[in-house]
Parts: sequence; structure tokens; C-alpha cells
Amino acid sequence: MKTTGICAPIGYLASGIACGIKSNDQKDLSIVYSTAPAIAAGVFTKNVIKGHSLLYTKNNIENKSIRAIVINSGNANACLGQKGDNDALKMAELTAFYLSVDKEEILLGSTGVIGHILKMGNIEEGIKKASKILNIEGGLDAASAIMTTDLVPKQSSVSFDIGGKNVTIGAMAKGSGMIHPDMATMIAIITTDINIKRELLNLALIESVNKSFNRISVDGDTSVCDMVIILSNKMAKNTIINKKDENYNTFLSHLTKICIEQSKMIVKDGEGATKMIELIVNNAQDADSAHKILNAVSTSPLFKTAMFGEDANWGRILTAIGYSNGSFNPDKVDIFIGDLCVCKNGKGQNFDEKKAKNILSKEEILIVIDLKDGLFKDKMWTCDFSYDYVKINGSYRT
Amino acid sequence: MKTTGICAPIGYLASGIACGIKSNDQKDLSIVYSTAPAIAAGVFTKNVIKGHSLLYTKNNIENKSIRAIVINSGNANACLGQKGDNDALKMAELTAFYLSVDKEEILLGSTGVIGHILKMGNIEEGIKKASKILNIEGGLDAASAIMTTDLVPKQSSVSFDIGGKNVTIGAMAKGSGMIHPDMATMIAIITTDINIKRELLNLALIESVNKSFNRISVDGDTSVCDMVIILSNKMAKNTIINKKDENYNTFLSHLTKICIEQSKMIVKDGEGATKMIELIVNNAQDADSAHKILNAVSTSPLFKTAMFGEDANWGRILTAIGYSNGSFNPDKVDIFIGDLCVCKNGKGQNFDEKKAKNILSKEEILIVIDLKDGLFKDKMWTCDFSYDYVKINGSYRT
Repeated sequence: MKTTGICAPIGYLASGIACGIKSNDQKDLSIVYSTAPAIAAGVFTKNVIKGHSLLYTKNNIENKSIRAIVINSGNANACLGQKGDNDALKMAELTAFYLSVDKEEILLGSTGVIGHILKMGNIEEGIKKASKILNIEGGLDAASAIMTTDLVPKQSSVSFDIGGKNVTIGAMAKGSGMIHPDMATMIAIITTDINIKRELLNLALIESVNKSFNRISVDGDTSVCDMVIILSNKMAKNTIINKKDENYNTFLSHLTKICIEQSKMIVKDGEGATKMIELIVNNAQDADSAHKILNAVSTSPLFKTAMFGEDANWGRILTAIGYSNGSFNPDKVDIFIGDLCVCKNGKGQNFDEKKAKNILSKEEILIVIDLKDGLFKDKMWTCDFSYDYVKINGSYRT
Repeated sequence: MKTTGICAPIGYLASGIACGIKSNDQKDLSIVYSTAPAIAAGVFTKNVIKGHSLLYTKNNIENKSIRAIVINSGNANACLGQKGDNDALKMAELTAFYLSVDKEEILLGSTGVIGHILKMGNIEEGIKKASKILNIEGGLDAASAIMTTDLVPKQSSVSFDIGGKNVTIGAMAKGSGMIHPDMATMIAIITTDINIKRELLNLALIESVNKSFNRISVDGDTSVCDMVIILSNKMAKNTIINKKDENYNTFLSHLTKICIEQSKMIVKDGEGATKMIELIVNNAQDADSAHKILNAVSTSPLFKTAMFGEDANWGRILTAIGYSNGSFNPDKVDIFIGDLCVCKNGKGQNFDEKKAKNILSKEEILIVIDLKDGLFKDKMWTCDFSYDYVKINGSYRT
């Protein structure tokens, strides 16, 4: 029985340690290492402001061989000018040195507070320590060391068959606040032993991310350091996937599944979240409208606080649909909380409030918006907005 | 000494009473009455979904003579289909009957929960009662009876000279949650005795609203019932303003001042708000970018919770600027909290945390974002995000 998470595929080792970047002795530095050269693909924040570590990774993601990713939490290494770029380079050089590989084979991640200079002494000690204890059981430590306000480490893995070879995908992620489509304060690292052409690895990652990490929202804020990276080291020894054939589709569907699994874990562990809400829009006029409507509802503080209060206040859902800028016919909108129809053709229904309260008291809630106006559908996951969100974010730096 | 608020201009009477729409015996129905025929102008929600009372008002705003506005709180009269339209019409007919005017001379407002049928028996009793006690001292009662989760009634007035005649503008507003540019859950009623051409009254209202009610945000949600209405009854007997001359400019500047005053009152009384934050963007490349940047910062839950926590976490401001879709140069951004520079040229500064904490402990906070990249500036007011926001909105209907 192999370990879950990023060490599940063949040829990956990991570690996570504390080196004093966080003030509370918690783990704050992870290394993920591939024993064989890997290719990589990444999806990065669309924020105009980008962290220095993220920029280093973005510039090196297409290098021929990638051997390791080093990630620190507790400091975003962002908005520091040349000093931030220098520190990112130094971090890559140090990791390369301690792992005896080239600095071009290193990718970086940093997450945490913005605008504070990295303590490079601690980073060096941390990299030295973490590189010495890399091991196949290190996935959980690595997943723990990338956490910021996350409460639980997030890991998944899946194995499947490609042309008679067993292939595995493993993943770890961190999220919590600033989670929103187009990469918020979240980092996900995915490892796989599959043999696949770079262009297809890239394409599969983009397709999977669009159905998973780009469909979750915690607070609508998007961050400057956030990325999903996949490493692929060919060690499953399957015949290379070099076209969009059945094997590609098999890989894509499993990758999407893993990404959705990690995304839901991020939402469930959203800052202060007590519930996960799955929002579905059916029968929209076009894909863009479906997406805009999901976006508006999933980020509405009024909707999210009502979910926290277990209040079937569907008027707030309809209101958010109304200001979403999506196209729809107000006189056709049906809204369901669980299987309970609370609004039909844009009008409130007499529904059983007790039954509604019962549905909303669950930890996972399904809300379906049926626009009855076209053929497009989309899905998103969000969480409620609680006292603890305010508490956590009122004093993040202190 | 005349009263402040909507009864300050010549010829306006008002009242506000409780008729049982709200469950707690609080005032819930207001009438504002002009003793002389008035012309009206309005700015309405841009939400695709619109309340039935608001639609009635939108359809009647250009009628030749307006004599009264009746507003109920506690129920938005929205999303009820034909029944909602019928009840709006009935509300206008009842008011016309008890005031002995035509139903075309009545405007309506409703604010509160969506999707619940109006108790028309209570509405009739309320209109009957409120129309009997209309008086020049009734402004405060009227301002109280339009409140929902507001904690304080909001009134202002100003007098000034137009061609030797004393002219007055009075106003009342309600806001609280769902406050955001383009009319959220807010209603403002402005009265004036000025004599002005309809087109210019309309234009002045739009210009004023764009610098005031369209520049405030409490939670980023926008509502379905929200409007700013101005009545003008000519009783100041000034020579009619029929072009954009000096008199028009005098009126416009005072109207804008009143609207800004009311807007700031709404933000200060935002649901759960403990602080008002004035956000300024200077030297933007274009007006649209300045506005987008203000919008992103003023609605960021992370920024707003940091303000609640009095935490000088400027990284969250820079992050919001980064995802705003406004154009700017990340390497030129300066951010000031009060007079304290916390970020220069996109890089964090070593600033005095104690001084920052001191500035942020105030009830009114100024934050200036200098983009140093153009000639455009804009200004917006927002509030912090507190435990009480969550509390109020977690159980609004119950």
C-alpha cells in the first residue's frame, strides 16, 4: 500500500519542516523532489501584481528538466522589488546546491503575508534540513508545511491504467482565504509518473483547472502568489501520450477528478467556513452567462452570511443573479435549495421553512438555479461566511 | 428655525408610522407630501430584477404632477409576479384616495425582504393613518419609518440663494446592507422648492448621484428596490433655471453636497460597520481604471476585515488593485494610510506600525492610492467588515 498525496506516483520524495519563517514553530518549508527529470506545466494567478517566487517559477516552468519544487509558507515574497527577485533566485540556488541539481531544475512557491522580506538565513537552514530528510512518506509533512490559515492538510491520489501500465497522479494543495477563480491564495502541486508530451500535459492541466480550481470561491479576493503546478516524470513507463486519444482522455478525466477533490477540500477548509455549497446553473443562454451568474452568487456576502445562518433567503440568490451581468429571463428563473423549489418563474413559492432549515443545517448544500432559457450549464463550489472569517482576517498579520 | 430633512424646503409635509409590516412595532410606513404639484426625477437600480413598487415609480416618474411618495419598509414587494404589480398599483390608489389626489401623482418605494406578499390590510391602515398626520415636523418620523437594518435615521438639508430667492434642498435616506454603486438596498428621497426645468433636474440628480450614492459600498451586493428620487415644487419662486448657467451650477454643487452627506451617513451606518473609510485614487491612466481600482478595494472582504482589525495590511490593498482590471503600473503604486506611506513604487516600506495602528483606530480613515501614472482621480467611501455584519445577515428573515 503506497502513500497518498504527492509521493503516490513512482519516483517522488517529499519533506516538510519548520525553519522559523512562521513565528509559532509550525512547519513552513516543503520540498517535493523527483528522482528522475520531470517536465512541468503550470497555471498562474491573473493578478497584475505577481510574487517574486511565482515569477521565478513562471520563467522556468518550461525548462527541459525539473527536479524539485521548494515552497515556503508564512511569507509571500511579494512586492519587494529587486530584493524579492534576488531572494527567489537565491532560494533556487540553495535548493539546487543541497539537492545537487541545476538551479534551472528548481521551481519555487511562497505564500503568506505580502511585503515582508524573507528571512534568508532561516530559508537556507530550512532547505538544508528539508533536503536531507526527503522520503516517500514525506507527503503529509509537505502538505502541512504549505498551509497558512488552513486547518487541515489536503492530499489526494488516484491510479489507473494506460496501455497496460499503472499510472498514478498525486496532489497536495493549500487554500483558505483569497480563494477565487483564476488562482487566489492557493497553491496546488500535482505529481504524476505518466509519460506524456509537454503540450498535452499543459492542455490537460488547463482543462482540469477550469473545471476545479477555477470554479471555487471563498471570498472573491485573488492573490499574487498562486499557482497549480504539475510534474510528470515518465516513470510509469507507458508509451508516450502524444495525441488527444483515449489515453489522453483517461488521464484528463482522472486529473480533473483529483483537481475537483482538492478544490472541494480547499472550500471546505475556507477561512471560517462551516459549510460547502455546490452551486449549479442549468439551461443558461450561453456559457459566459452561466459563469457570471455563478460568480455573482458565490461571492455575495449577503448570500454567504444567509448560508451561515441557515436562512433560506432565496431573494439574495435572485438579487445576485440580477446584478451578475449574465443574460437570463427574470420571469423564468427557478431556484432549488436541495430538492426544495423556493422560487419558480422568478416568483417566491410557499415552501416548507422547516424542511429548508433542515437542508441548510447540513455541511454540504446543493443549490440549483434553473434559468430555463438555453442549453448551457456550469458548476461552482463556495462556502459560507462566518464570524470566524472576520476574526481570522481582522488580525492576519499580528 | 425650520426643521432639517425633507420638510426643510417650502411646501413639504411628512409622516412615518407603524402599521405592522415589521413584526416588532417599529415604524414601517412613510409619506412625503408636497402641498403644490412637483416634478420628479429618479435614479434606479441597475439590477435586472426590479421590485414592483420601484417599477411603478419608474413608470410614473415623468408624470406632469407628483404630489406624494409613500414608502414601506420591512417588505421589498419584489419577485411576486402579477400580484406584486397589483399591490403596487393598489398602494398608489389608496394613497391617492386618502390624500385626495390622482393615483398618477403618487410614487412608491418598498424595502425589506424579497418574495413575501405585502400585507395590504396593514398597508391600507398605515396609509390612512399616515396621511392624517402629515406635518412639517414629520421628517424625522418619515426618515425613521424607511429604515430596515439601519441604526439611525439619516436627514440633511441646505439653503442657498438663487437670483435673490432662498432655495432649500432636504433629504432623507436609508441604507445599511446591499449598498454598492448603482443603487443597492438604499432609498433616498430629496425634496426641493427650487424652480428648475425637468431636464436639468434630471441631469443634476444624475451628476450628483455619480459623485455620491454611486461611490459608496457596504458589501458589494446591489438590490432590486433601490432608488434616489428628487421632488421639486417651485415654491421658492426663483426664476426658472432652464440652462446650465451659474444658477444651475449653484444648485448642482449644493445637491451634490447633500447627496455626499447622505451617502457618508449610509456608509457609517452600514451593517455592522465600525469605521468609514475614504478611498482616493490619484493620477490614474483613465477614469475607468480609477473607478475599477476603487471598486475592487472597497469590496474586498480581506481589506475590509483588516480595517475592522485595525491591521495596516497594505498587501491586501495592492492585491485588490492587482485584480481590479484597471490599468496601472505595478512599479509606480504608492499607498498611504492617513499620511503614512506604507508602500512606495509597489514595494513595502518600513513604517511605524504603532503610528499606523493609531490612524486605523479612528472611526474615519483616509486611504490614498497614488498610481503616478496619469491625470485621473476618483473617490469612494466604504466601511469595515465586522462580526456584526455576519450576525445581522445570518438571520435577516428570522
